[in-house]
Amino acid sequence: MFKATVYVTLRESVLDPQGNAVHESLHSLGYDEVGDVRIGKYMELEIQSDDQKAAEERVRDMCEKLLANTVIEDFRFDLTKLEG
Amino acid sequence: MFKATVYVTLRESVLDPQGNAVHESLHSLGYDEVGDVRIGKYMELEIQSDDQKAAEERVRDMCEKLLANTVIEDFRFDLTKLEG
Repeated sequence: MFKATVYVTLRESVLDPQGNAVHESLHSLGYDEVGDVRIGKYMELEIQSDDQKAAEERVRDMCEKLLANTVIEDFRFDLTKLEG
Repeated sequence: MFKATVYVTLRESVLDPQGNAVHESLHSLGYDEVGDVRIGKYMELEIQSDDQKAAEERVRDMCEKLLANTVIEDFRFDLTKLEG
């Protein structure tokens, strides 16, 4: 079994209104040292597989088909082997 | 200047309906090897500071006050020094 940790982030060229809202909120709380804020998604998936290479291929597929919108988002992921 | 990378995840004991929805969607696409899915947030913040220890303290504060809901969420973060 593997744990896939997936990071989905907006592409550099895409505006991030949620990040801007967090930036504004932090400034209004007095955290004036905060510059650019970008917000993404972080996902952990259990993958029932014994074959790391096959699991990687499947997770890449899942990212492309469902987990990320590749028109505006980038993704990357790590696989970690779990016991059992 | 530092880049703070913040990970906010639901506590283990808290149900994750968004994760369950992704789990169901992945199964309906044929990814039957997917077990538990947990979804969190991933944030990148630029921090204008020269003092890593002070910056860490400030980012921890931001997490506790705004970025995470510590009743139901855990957070962790890394600080990376940026050039300039």
